Amino acid sequence: MTTGFKLRKPYLLFLGDAPDEAEAKTACGLRDWARDACKAQLRLPEAKLDLGLPDMTPDEAAQAGVGSFVIGVAPVGGQIPREWAPVLHSAVAAGLDVVSGMHRPLEGVPGLEEAARKRGVALVNVRLPRQNFPAGSGRRRSGKRLLTVGTDCALGKKYTALALTEAMRARGISADFRATGQTGILISGGGIALDAVTADFAAGAAEVLSPDAASDHWDVIEGQGSLFHPAYAGVTLALVHGSQPDVLILCHDPTRRHLHGFPDFPTPDLRTATTRYLEAARLTNPNAVLGGISLNTSMLAATERARVLAETADYAGVPCFDPLQTPLKATLDFFLRQ
Amino acid sequence: MTTGFKLRKPYLLFLGDAPDEAEAKTACGLRDWARDACKAQLRLPEAKLDLGLPDMTPDEAAQAGVGSFVIGVAPVGGQIPREWAPVLHSAVAAGLDVVSGMHRPLEGVPGLEEAARKRGVALVNVRLPRQNFPAGSGRRRSGKRLLTVGTDCALGKKYTALALTEAMRARGISADFRATGQTGILISGGGIALDAVTADFAAGAAEVLSPDAASDHWDVIEGQGSLFHPAYAGVTLALVHGSQPDVLILCHDPTRRHLHGFPDFPTPDLRTATTRYLEAARLTNPNAVLGGISLNTSMLAATERARVLAETADYAGVPCFDPLQTPLKATLDFFLRQ
Repeated sequence: MTTGFKLRKPYLLFLGDAPDEAEAKTACGLRDWARDACKAQLRLPEAKLDLGLPDMTPDEAAQAGVGSFVIGVAPVGGQIPREWAPVLHSAVAAGLDVVSGMHRPLEGVPGLEEAARKRGVALVNVRLPRQNFPAGSGRRRSGKRLLTVGTDCALGKKYTALALTEAMRARGISADFRATGQTGILISGGGIALDAVTADFAAGAAEVLSPDAASDHWDVIEGQGSLFHPAYAGVTLALVHGSQPDVLILCHDPTRRHLHGFPDFPTPDLRTATTRYLEAARLTNPNAVLGGISLNTSMLAATERARVLAETADYAGVPCFDPLQTPLKATLDFFLRQ
Repeated sequence: MTTGFKLRKPYLLFLGDAPDEAEAKTACGLRDWARDACKAQLRLPEAKLDLGLPDMTPDEAAQAGVGSFVIGVAPVGGQIPREWAPVLHSAVAAGLDVVSGMHRPLEGVPGLEEAARKRGVALVNVRLPRQNFPAGSGRRRSGKRLLTVGTDCALGKKYTALALTEAMRARGISADFRATGQTGILISGGGIALDAVTADFAAGAAEVLSPDAASDHWDVIEGQGSLFHPAYAGVTLALVHGSQPDVLILCHDPTRRHLHGFPDFPTPDLRTATTRYLEAARLTNPNAVLGGISLNTSMLAATERARVLAETADYAGVPCFDPLQTPLKATLDFFLRQ
């Protein structure tokens, strides 16, 4: 991989004082998609969340063979709370690498950098780019690419890409998951946190992320943000252009009436979203097509789910699935035939 | 201004070994729009370009009252060539501040930081953000905003914004030019180099750039890149969303058949460009309108110019002008009436 993170597995997942799964997206992603790497959890006394892993201190975890202490929660604002300093220091003292997906570097915690150097362990900031990227070139690359895109943030783009990668591999297709966010990077052990790249080079970084490959190889690229999001659409557009996808999978939550946390911004309808994503994608790949729609139906009852999936497929004219609930066969059949 | 650069005028413009104006965009922009601030030029022996300013060494310039040595050329790749080290050191030794619009910091030149500290002069990297920006909020702000956008890079977005600001002020309208690139920042003394902001915060930075203002105040915002550019469209979209413009002015070069330096990417037609820019702008300002088209007609003969301007106005249904060649009255009349 391009960024060359070498993460020492397995992990001790730090949950902080997380009240629920929504506050611990990274930890939950690791539990769901890198189960074998998750050895234990560490929770502050206030935490309500329980991932069902053994509770261990850093010392106990080190004894049990854990390699890295992974911050699995994302406090608002991306700062590392001062209350975490003692537990971060105890992880270093126990000989664990400390891994963070936050915007601010671990080196900002007083004394942590020196302690890590003395103990011979690494502080790994997966969200901070470790290389300079070129500006985008727009040059067509060999191999095939699929990109998940969404009507909003946080509705299943990463899970959809992971599930599609697994399903393609199960069919014997050569496929790689390409992570663009911190949780995806922790799951797959590589990738580029695209939102942390300097804006001028974001499309170029997306080009670097999915390099030339064999003509029958698929890169399955984790989407970011949404073209309809007032804060993050620029990141999304750079990723669409740099990825030059052959296939787009549009991810959507049918229960979401407006963007998460943005009540003044209605969720776009699927046809508008499809049109705008294809327009954008065709700048760098005129053959880009919509390969399917991924619905997050976790809020729906089973009968309702089946109805919504069928209606959406009918409305959009492409296969429609929930990557955690329904088979992916029809979708793969559809876009692999294109 | 938000970034608080305090640039010591007047300037000694460093032209390096630039063969022509295209290689010295920053110096030419300063000559055209901040003439009073440009006291002298310094050229390496290989330089072919001559801005018509007196040639001075840093010592001579300091004697003549110059405050800052400004790097007016942009070498490919944004690196500071090693051959420049002696002249940069001589500027510091002469007591001049050194001002750079490049991606790489001046502190990367061996010994320059220490020399500047000892001499008591500043190294000013106008392209490196000096603050952390919030993510975009999408909140509507008070006051009016105009944003210049383009079918490509480098075809007149900055000059158009500067000319419109001057024309509005000449009418007694309260108007500020808001710079988003290094040359604009040097001309106006403030602004944010948007392409250097971390991608996740680019729209937020654009929001910070044009804060709440009096209801009859206009911020005239310098556009960046193009929605149709494979490298920079993400920056452009973030700027469109964060600026929430009431009025868009579309800038275009009628002689350009493909994007500059990208022969595989045809220049979009004006109707497609208008549609896509308005779609994007209306996410954060549903009342956004096209206020006019700014044509770069520098390559056309006078009769040809008049014909192309008239035909374009007819085709687009809005006033059409060349900010360096034709009056702006009709355009201002048109969009101020909206």
